[in-house]
Amino acid sequence: MNRLLLNCDIGESFGSWTMGLDAEVMPFIDCANVACGFHAGDPGIMRKTVSLAVSHGVQIGAHPAYQDLVGFGRRSMAYSAQELQDILHYQIGALDGICQAQGARVSYVKPHGAMYNDMMANPAQLRAVIQAIAAYDRSLPLMLMATRDNAAAQQIGDEYGVTLWFEAFADRAYDRAGRLVSRQLPGAVHHDGETIVAQALTIARGGDLTASDGSALRLHADTLCVHGDNASSMAAVQRIREALNQLSAP
Amino acid sequence: MNRLLLNCDIGESFGSWTMGLDAEVMPFIDCANVACGFHAGDPGIMRKTVSLAVSHGVQIGAHPAYQDLVGFGRRSMAYSAQELQDILHYQIGALDGICQAQGARVSYVKPHGAMYNDMMANPAQLRAVIQAIAAYDRSLPLMLMATRDNAAAQQIGDEYGVTLWFEAFADRAYDRAGRLVSRQLPGAVHHDGETIVAQALTIARGGDLTASDGSALRLHADTLCVHGDNASSMAAVQRIREALNQLSAP
Amino acid sequence: MNRLLLNCDIGESFGSWTMGLDAEVMPFIDCANVACGFHAGDPGIMRKTVSLAVSHGVQIGAHPAYQDLVGFGRRSMAYSAQELQDILHYQIGALDGICQAQGARVSYVKPHGAMYNDMMANPAQLRAVIQAIAAYDRSLPLMLMATRDNAAAQQIGDEYGVTLWFEAFADRAYDRAGRLVSRQLPGAVHHDGETIVAQALTIARGGDLTASDGSALRLHADTLCVHGDNASSMAAVQRIREALNQLSAP
Amino acid sequence: MNRLLLNCDIGESFGSWTMGLDAEVMPFIDCANVACGFHAGDPGIMRKTVSLAVSHGVQIGAHPAYQDLVGFGRRSMAYSAQELQDILHYQIGALDGICQAQGARVSYVKPHGAMYNDMMANPAQLRAVIQAIAAYDRSLPLMLMATRDNAAAQQIGDEYGVTLWFEAFADRAYDRAGRLVSRQLPGAVHHDGETIVAQALTIARGGDLTASDGSALRLHADTLCVHGDNASSMAAVQRIREALNQLSAP
Repeated sequence: MNRLLLNCDIGESFGSWTMGLDAEVMPFIDCANVACGFHAGDPGIMRKTVSLAVSHGVQIGAHPAYQDLVGFGRRSMAYSAQELQDILHYQIGALDGICQAQGARVSYVKPHGAMYNDMMANPAQLRAVIQAIAAYDRSLPLMLMATRDNAAAQQIGDEYGVTLWFEAFADRAYDRAGRLVSRQLPGAVHHDGETIVAQALTIARGGDLTASDGSALRLHADTLCVHGDNASSMAAVQRIREALNQLSAP
Repeated sequence: MNRLLLNCDIGESFGSWTMGLDAEVMPFIDCANVACGFHAGDPGIMRKTVSLAVSHGVQIGAHPAYQDLVGFGRRSMAYSAQELQDILHYQIGALDGICQAQGARVSYVKPHGAMYNDMMANPAQLRAVIQAIAAYDRSLPLMLMATRDNAAAQQIGDEYGVTLWFEAFADRAYDRAGRLVSRQLPGAVHHDGETIVAQALTIARGGDLTASDGSALRLHADTLCVHGDNASSMAAVQRIREALNQLSAP
Repeated sequence: MNRLLLNCDIGESFGSWTMGLDAEVMPFIDCANVACGFHAGDPGIMRKTVSLAVSHGVQIGAHPAYQDLVGFGRRSMAYSAQELQDILHYQIGALDGICQAQGARVSYVKPHGAMYNDMMANPAQLRAVIQAIAAYDRSLPLMLMATRDNAAAQQIGDEYGVTLWFEAFADRAYDRAGRLVSRQLPGAVHHDGETIVAQALTIARGGDLTASDGSALRLHADTLCVHGDNASSMAAVQRIREALNQLSAP
Repeated sequence: MNRLLLNCDIGESFGSWTMGLDAEVMPFIDCANVACGFHAGDPGIMRKTVSLAVSHGVQIGAHPAYQDLVGFGRRSMAYSAQELQDILHYQIGALDGICQAQGARVSYVKPHGAMYNDMMANPAQLRAVIQAIAAYDRSLPLMLMATRDNAAAQQIGDEYGVTLWFEAFADRAYDRAGRLVSRQLPGAVHHDGETIVAQALTIARGGDLTASDGSALRLHADTLCVHGDNASSMAAVQRIREALNQLSAP
């Protein structure tokens, strides 16, 4: 069993606006998904974020998005495959430039918001993302969502020689297909700390979750997405970190 | 005598708007100063521009600017030294990302517009630019303006181990300090092809120009800035290229 | 029979980039659809465009768009109805502010690009646009596409007391539903001047066009969309103007 | 003695980022300086802000800025007088459009950040701002900084028939010219509630402040600038409001 990496969206402040408890959450995570300026982050924020990640030995991932600052990259936009690849190269490169000035490097890619959702919903878009990474640097893994069956995605990854890191969520309910239950529906988000930690441990151990229809769901996940937005999510991160550490202790 | 490189601002289209005769001028130049998205250029334009440069064996330079799309990066803005370095790393990195996806690399840096002018007028700003390049990759030369005395700039470059490429202009009149005569003044811009080619050759040979006050002016230049905006500047580029080729022919 | 108004997208330059033959086409049109800064146009361009329209006695329409400068407002984006109304009020108001400083006023609204297409494809979006206009100033007509049956749109317009101006195209083929034939298909765009003028006259007279499947198509149109992009479209505008003038001559 | 109006910068959130305690401060102020999208605010934020102001009967002022979102409009930029007027008309109009959809109107103008500072430092810039307001609607007052001698500004206002509202600060130290002491210097900002309220009352009564060099300073102010950034500034606003109410009570 591989160690389950904790990843977190980081560096989502912009200019004079602050978002997220970056300094607080950084000590507890393995992978920082750093905003690249299209939905959040600006060159100054990116520098500070990279510096913080470096000082904690946290891996730096590019967290590229559609170019929609006011919509925080959450609104779907009709990008062509070529346009998508272009904005990926631009954003990954921009973050890599910021990293390089500090002796660091981007080490994986996780699309943000609507770009992430559209990639999970549309195989052509997933292919475009993977193709973009392969052209940039095929040693960079792509972080995407673990579902009941990762085979279709894995096949595209294999085709381009790009490693896929599947991520799961400890604080969200899943449906039988292994998709997240919509936030519109009751029970979609877990708020109880015990439940969240228990789900994290089940995922880490490769055990069965209970999907929203009662069926057993086994997710093969490489990483767990955690959040550093507020005190409550921070508390969850710390408990998950502790629980995973105990799990992997000899 | 080193060969005088011809450099040209390239890739200054944006979205649906076209600017410059990029495809026409590319065959005649050595160095393409490629806009990085802050004053012009977008990820798609940058990809096409890099591809064009690669196909002609032209060196790709980052042409970063203040973040002022509507002002085309021509308006001075009060950036701190730190902010300046951040936007340089972001833009150089972004272009390098586009390059990397095509197996190319950024090979020098030339600031654009107001960033260029402010850097020439303000040693603290020049230092910030050089420091930014040194942190990113000290093997990248900085292109800046040749004046009567390049020593002060050279000293800062030496301090950080960054090579300076001084550029001169064949179509502009110089004052006795080796600064360009303001476009507001009569005679600031040469429009006659003969004059332009003669000035290019004098610069290439390391000879004396006549400054606007009649004094002799010797510029030590590594590169000559040419323009591909319109048919007239295109004609000048071709004549300069031809003249320089003859000069360097055995 | 009402006089068929000629409308044209205008003011689509941006910053240092030029687009369209605005000064050339303005004398021949009745209604200028002026870009409001989200897909094209900037405050300076808008001022010049309004001034040009005023000097020719041309009606000024707001031509609002999705906020996507690099995509020229042509990419569909997932705006909520509320977000759509907000950006309409912002853009119409901004243009009205520019107008007011010159003693002019916005006198109608025509959404641009993807906002226009989405409004025609999605009744909820059309309702949001009409609702936004009603809240701003219900005396401003909305320009939208004439199809075989305008009744559904008309009903929403009536509900809010907003006048609808249906527009037709002289240079495009129609399908049997009165929708434009996709540009991907052969014969979608008329390039022959005779054909274009003939179609304009048929529309002006309220006669029958021949749809792409051979069926007769009668469009009830208040305005005809013309283009001032290049010499060829300019020639068409002049011929259409002349033909319509003859038609309405006593 | 006129009643001293309390004005406050409001609506400076953007997209998903929140700034300021707008809902908390609104009940205590007379005039809301509403960001117009160039340094902060977006169409949705503007709508909510206008709605909040309307519900509290607070006057809505346009708070236009240089186009520099990442710099929050705080960096000086080299705008020409014409460009300045264009962006003023655009932003005032945009806010007026948002207002109009709610049956409200912009009722004064206060430039933000660097635009405000540059206007106070440069008479040509002040003239351009006043000229822009006169062209838009000369019944809108301009809010600007009260200094020891307001005569020069007043003369330009009179020339264009634009009312000037001079503003003072209760929480800042003044130098003998009636300019704010730089925040870099000790004692520039008052943190003590008593001191702040006392300075507010002195200004309201038209009494003498003590400038940083010990000299007496009398400011003729129409309005007092207060802040709703945090709990501490909120407490000050409430105390000032209460003190002014007592002052004007019969």
